[in-house]
Amino acid sequence: MKFNYQIIIEYIGKNFAGWQIQKNGKSIQAEVEKAIGKTLKLKVNLIGSGRTDAGVNAVAQSANFVCKKKIPNNFRFISSVNHFLRNSSISIVNLKKKDSDFHARRSAKKRQYEYIIVNRAAKLSIDNNRAWLVKKKLNIKKMKIAIKHFLGTHDFSAFRASSCSAKNPIKTISQANIKKRGDRISLTFISKSFLQKQVRSMVGSLKYVGEEKWSPKKILQVIKLKKRDKCAPPAPPQGLFLKKVFY
Amino acid sequence: MKFNYQIIIEYIGKNFAGWQIQKNGKSIQAEVEKAIGKTLKLKVNLIGSGRTDAGVNAVAQSANFVCKKKIPNNFRFISSVNHFLRNSSISIVNLKKKDSDFHARRSAKKRQYEYIIVNRAAKLSIDNNRAWLVKKKLNIKKMKIAIKHFLGTHDFSAFRASSCSAKNPIKTISQANIKKRGDRISLTFISKSFLQKQVRSMVGSLKYVGEEKWSPKKILQVIKLKKRDKCAPPAPPQGLFLKKVFY
Repeated sequence: MKFNYQIIIEYIGKNFAGWQIQKNGKSIQAEVEKAIGKTLKLKVNLIGSGRTDAGVNAVAQSANFVCKKKIPNNFRFISSVNHFLRNSSISIVNLKKKDSDFHARRSAKKRQYEYIIVNRAAKLSIDNNRAWLVKKKLNIKKMKIAIKHFLGTHDFSAFRASSCSAKNPIKTISQANIKKRGDRISLTFISKSFLQKQVRSMVGSLKYVGEEKWSPKKILQVIKLKKRDKCAPPAPPQGLFLKKVFY
Repeated sequence: MKFNYQIIIEYIGKNFAGWQIQKNGKSIQAEVEKAIGKTLKLKVNLIGSGRTDAGVNAVAQSANFVCKKKIPNNFRFISSVNHFLRNSSISIVNLKKKDSDFHARRSAKKRQYEYIIVNRAAKLSIDNNRAWLVKKKLNIKKMKIAIKHFLGTHDFSAFRASSCSAKNPIKTISQANIKKRGDRISLTFISKSFLQKQVRSMVGSLKYVGEEKWSPKKILQVIKLKKRDKCAPPAPPQGLFLKKVFY
């Protein structure tokens, strides 16, 4: 008999080479696999909903693993795994038993990302490693117009990393919103899936609009050009949070 | 000629012995004085709006200093001071020229504190050093009733540190609110001033109400008893934020 479990994982990505196991550098996946291995006393293979890049954070990364043991007590499992992760910036926040066909990546219907910009002169202390500090005053009205140009189905070739391995650059953005509160700007995006560095590339371009280097319409032009070198530099990883995976 | 400046300071209090200069341990005040000293090339004496205890955070601590030099450019001053604070969890977020009679502590009309509880089983990663993790499910309805008992003018002798040096234990709480969003509970308090550990003692007692160790009415009884040993243990410092000082 085999059991299929979903776990929800929160992390600050600083000091990690990203979600996926790497030859060089620590990965979130490897740290969590080790902690689960110590708890269950057997080796597990975690399947993440998707990779997050080096330095990117998660409020609720979703992953699953199949194992021979039944976990008798969710609370004790979570406590034990977190105990083994106590010196890391990774937390296991939930565990759920799933049907055998549940697959954290393939079963995912939508993914939500949030990007946090703090728009002020002073360096970050409370939001250190948790936001992008932008010192130049951003024009939020223009950013609100610009972000809507990402909505719908587009070829996002201009907004992907050169290392992105996805065959199809066409993605559909179903939600794209900006909220500002004091000097904090929150940008949220929902899509079935994203290309590598797509959210950070979109945010980098929206920052150009906010700085009035680009007009809001320029977003449409860059989408049409489909060329990576027409895009603004991607926003840095520490402002990005994988917020939710919908099934 | 002398100039009087107000600065606004953000910090994460972990690794500090508190706001005030101490014989043992690093203080926020000393670090900021050093950084201003390097920037202006003269020694300054900072007057804080009040002391925050070891480990307590600030969104906007207010302080003033009097100096012989006129600061010609606020933005460059802030950048320079933050440069000297770059390896610390302290940020200078604002600078304002004030009249000579402005005194960060004595001129303050009201102070606002926020306390953050995260109510879940898992250890904190995103909110590490920025909240109190309470694992037992809290009854928020009862806490909302209880917090209102702190409103108004009371003798808060039961809710102060044994080391508190204030002559008068009578304080007036003009605002006391709780908001819950997901597993995050935010408690805010406004008063002209607070006794040492008063907010943390009130929050510790409200946690007892949330855990149903105490009824909401018990708050009134403890206030009346005026005895420190009747109070619940104070909440830990990392959840507390000095949010705003009103003048």
